[in-house]
Amino acid sequence: MSVTNSAGRKLPDTIAGTEYKPFTKAHKNNCDSKVVSLKKALQKSGLKEGQTISFHHQLRNGDYVVNHTLDVIRDAGIKNLRLAQTALFPIHEPVIDHIKDGTINRIEGSINGSVGDYVSKNPLSSPVVLRSHGGRWAAVKNDELHVDVAIIAASAADNRGNCTGLIGKSAFGPICYSQVDAMHADTVIVVTDNLVDRPCGFQEINEGYVDYVVEMDRIGNPNDIVSGSLKVTNNPQKLHIARQCIDLMNALGLIKDGLIFQAGAGGISLAALQYLDKTLEKNNVVAACETGGFTKFIAEMHRKGLVKNAYGLQCFDVESIKYIAETRRLITDIGHYADPSSKGRFLDGLHATILGATEVDTNFNVNVNTHSDGRLLHGIGGHQDSAAGAHLTMITVPVYRKTIPVIRDAVTTITTPGDIIDAIVTDQGIAINPKRKDLLDKLEGKENVNIVSIESLKEMAYDETGGPPNLDLGDDIVGITKWRNGELLDVIYQVKD
Amino acid sequence: MSVTNSAGRKLPDTIAGTEYKPFTKAHKNNCDSKVVSLKKALQKSGLKEGQTISFHHQLRNGDYVVNHTLDVIRDAGIKNLRLAQTALFPIHEPVIDHIKDGTINRIEGSINGSVGDYVSKNPLSSPVVLRSHGGRWAAVKNDELHVDVAIIAASAADNRGNCTGLIGKSAFGPICYSQVDAMHADTVIVVTDNLVDRPCGFQEINEGYVDYVVEMDRIGNPNDIVSGSLKVTNNPQKLHIARQCIDLMNALGLIKDGLIFQAGAGGISLAALQYLDKTLEKNNVVAACETGGFTKFIAEMHRKGLVKNAYGLQCFDVESIKYIAETRRLITDIGHYADPSSKGRFLDGLHATILGATEVDTNFNVNVNTHSDGRLLHGIGGHQDSAAGAHLTMITVPVYRKTIPVIRDAVTTITTPGDIIDAIVTDQGIAINPKRKDLLDKLEGKENVNIVSIESLKEMAYDETGGPPNLDLGDDIVGITKWRNGELLDVIYQVKD
Repeated sequence: MSVTNSAGRKLPDTIAGTEYKPFTKAHKNNCDSKVVSLKKALQKSGLKEGQTISFHHQLRNGDYVVNHTLDVIRDAGIKNLRLAQTALFPIHEPVIDHIKDGTINRIEGSINGSVGDYVSKNPLSSPVVLRSHGGRWAAVKNDELHVDVAIIAASAADNRGNCTGLIGKSAFGPICYSQVDAMHADTVIVVTDNLVDRPCGFQEINEGYVDYVVEMDRIGNPNDIVSGSLKVTNNPQKLHIARQCIDLMNALGLIKDGLIFQAGAGGISLAALQYLDKTLEKNNVVAACETGGFTKFIAEMHRKGLVKNAYGLQCFDVESIKYIAETRRLITDIGHYADPSSKGRFLDGLHATILGATEVDTNFNVNVNTHSDGRLLHGIGGHQDSAAGAHLTMITVPVYRKTIPVIRDAVTTITTPGDIIDAIVTDQGIAINPKRKDLLDKLEGKENVNIVSIESLKEMAYDETGGPPNLDLGDDIVGITKWRNGELLDVIYQVKD
Repeated sequence: MSVTNSAGRKLPDTIAGTEYKPFTKAHKNNCDSKVVSLKKALQKSGLKEGQTISFHHQLRNGDYVVNHTLDVIRDAGIKNLRLAQTALFPIHEPVIDHIKDGTINRIEGSINGSVGDYVSKNPLSSPVVLRSHGGRWAAVKNDELHVDVAIIAASAADNRGNCTGLIGKSAFGPICYSQVDAMHADTVIVVTDNLVDRPCGFQEINEGYVDYVVEMDRIGNPNDIVSGSLKVTNNPQKLHIARQCIDLMNALGLIKDGLIFQAGAGGISLAALQYLDKTLEKNNVVAACETGGFTKFIAEMHRKGLVKNAYGLQCFDVESIKYIAETRRLITDIGHYADPSSKGRFLDGLHATILGATEVDTNFNVNVNTHSDGRLLHGIGGHQDSAAGAHLTMITVPVYRKTIPVIRDAVTTITTPGDIIDAIVTDQGIAINPKRKDLLDKLEGKENVNIVSIESLKEMAYDETGGPPNLDLGDDIVGITKWRNGELLDVIYQVKD
């Protein structure tokens, strides 16, 4: 059959067995501003009872966006939402009120600090779901965690939604957690305190993914978004642990041209980085890449040519944000970093990573989520991802803290399974996972590294502390830890108030 | 029910009504090199009869990858493939042999030059499907065009698949067409002649999307990949047309701070850019952005501060590639540029665009695909996309070429519907689409712009040429043009040999 289409052409409706819809209308693209109020944006999104809203945590303890948005939602009378933030901080204590008033009844994401403390004692209708950075990315991508409305804080955005976290008074580093929300949420709302001319000069998320742009006076308090100046530890015990990490890498022959390593922004990690910096310089070695969190220490190593590449990802200080903006370094996202469902992550083949823990057990299982009193106070972060990616995963811990043994028979919560933990680097020596015979062989006869058994570390801890205190937990499950592929790794029980 | 998982935890299988799979195994990520031979990569992809393979065209007439890959496929005896390249060039004449020997039986994508000529006379089993840049992106994204195996040429790649077109002996500009193939094809093969240390210093496509990396001696001939040095026309007729485009923009008040414009790499466009450059400088105006193809002329305007931003997209000369690599300008992709199925394109709200045509009719319909003898010799490119995005879409054409009227009663093929074409800028004056009363009102009484009717231009053309020659086409349909949303715009009939 022939049909005359709107361009006036009489054309068959089927050609070589394929049916075609006739052309109906050409029109100019809509290029209206997407700027509306938050209330209007939420209304237009059709957000309703039972749905899921997401946020990123890159404004950290300076964030004003989560609290403000929840207030607007509460005022609109929408109840029983699932909160799917990448992390909450102490500033988000008002979330507790939103739990009490019924605005929020489920949480999937990290709950650092007071909300964690509250939820530990007051279970939600479903347990808090904790995923690693990569695990969350995969869950949103693969629709295990469907986001109805994503609210994405940006330190600069234009009126069509191109946006960044790299410039402006509330700069927090490249937006790197929310691209997956932008790609998969039904409605995407960018919230900024810095509306700039189109096109925005940096664009970690572009207008193709954005429905609405909302202007706020301030998206956060710059003093609490990033550290003004990160400090290396000067605690001799921690410096000793840091030193041993580099000695271990050295003994294993890992400090050579092409090294790819990760160290975070904690005191021990930063100290280790400084030792590494000196070692690279002394040995005239050039590392290939630093991954994970970005700090002025990495920027400085890059500037000096000690490391060829560094990915702009989560930034922990003002200097590192400026460095990325000025040098326009490689900017990437958490999917590239850690998505377990992709065809490859930049963590794959990491030569060494330095991670922390609240507890480690004699099976090398690591806990970073709960304190030894059972309270859920931290998220998983990139812990599982980095451990799975690295040839040498080092956990830096003291053998005990005050009266609590860190090394113990069993961790309160399993965050990262012992199978992928390679070395526990403590103030009393280094325990190598017996499964890593390759490492043990290489370390045979090496001086400079004090290899001890995990059991001996545990015994020291128990001797000094009298062992773990008795934990009297309730039967209700307040949280779960998932492995990167979504499998159930452990549960977190209620703490009796 | 409780299950003991592989981490030794006895956990319920259902919590708050949700069932969980127990944790089975943690393992280190695989970080093996992905480098294999092309033959092996294709074998592992499981490519088989009837499937679809895709390529980008950014190596243009210097490309060695398409021909080589088709040879390997032919040698493997795989038949009846659908070729879904973004464009073919004269260098791809061997594709004709692969049509004849049955390796290829369908094509979706531009066929510039000899393959177009051949297919015009020798219909394939289905017509060639022509889509705009944005239309193709949407078709792959939305699975209208499913790609089984994407073969992506890169001028540098590391052994895990991070890759770029910005550096190396065969640099062709940022890879910008293939991200959608990388995201949606079942198997993704990166082909490079420049295997670099991981991580590759630029990464338009990252390892998360890549299955295999293949090394070739040369992916192309640099002399034909990009122009060594683009030349502005010195033809007085063309210079006059270029000048009129800028005069028209000026008369419409478009040349002011914040201007967003597009001009391609054709002779008239380049001349218009140079006039624009002078006009901006003279009037002390700063444009906000240049979109579309990138050339040394844009780089120079950016360097001089005459345009604040320019997106790194398709590059047409060596200088522009170097400029993007050195300054690390905003790099983006065709989805952001033009995807009609996204929430916004950077073409939206373009103040003005300058486009070419083979023919224009009195309804302002434009043909860029076929010559007036009916042969399908060109793709759609960004023509539809840019016309739909721009407030002022200008088509620059002479009234006639040799003995052929360019302005005519009806175009041979409709590429872009007249509804979104605003001005036909010719050597004999400018015809404004009567639907654009707003433009006509603004131009009332303006000197410097010679406004004429489209009919009068057509009459001039017919007077000089005697009108269009009779076209004696066959009944077989050799190609179709699609509107950006996939609707059937027009068909292209067989040319009798």
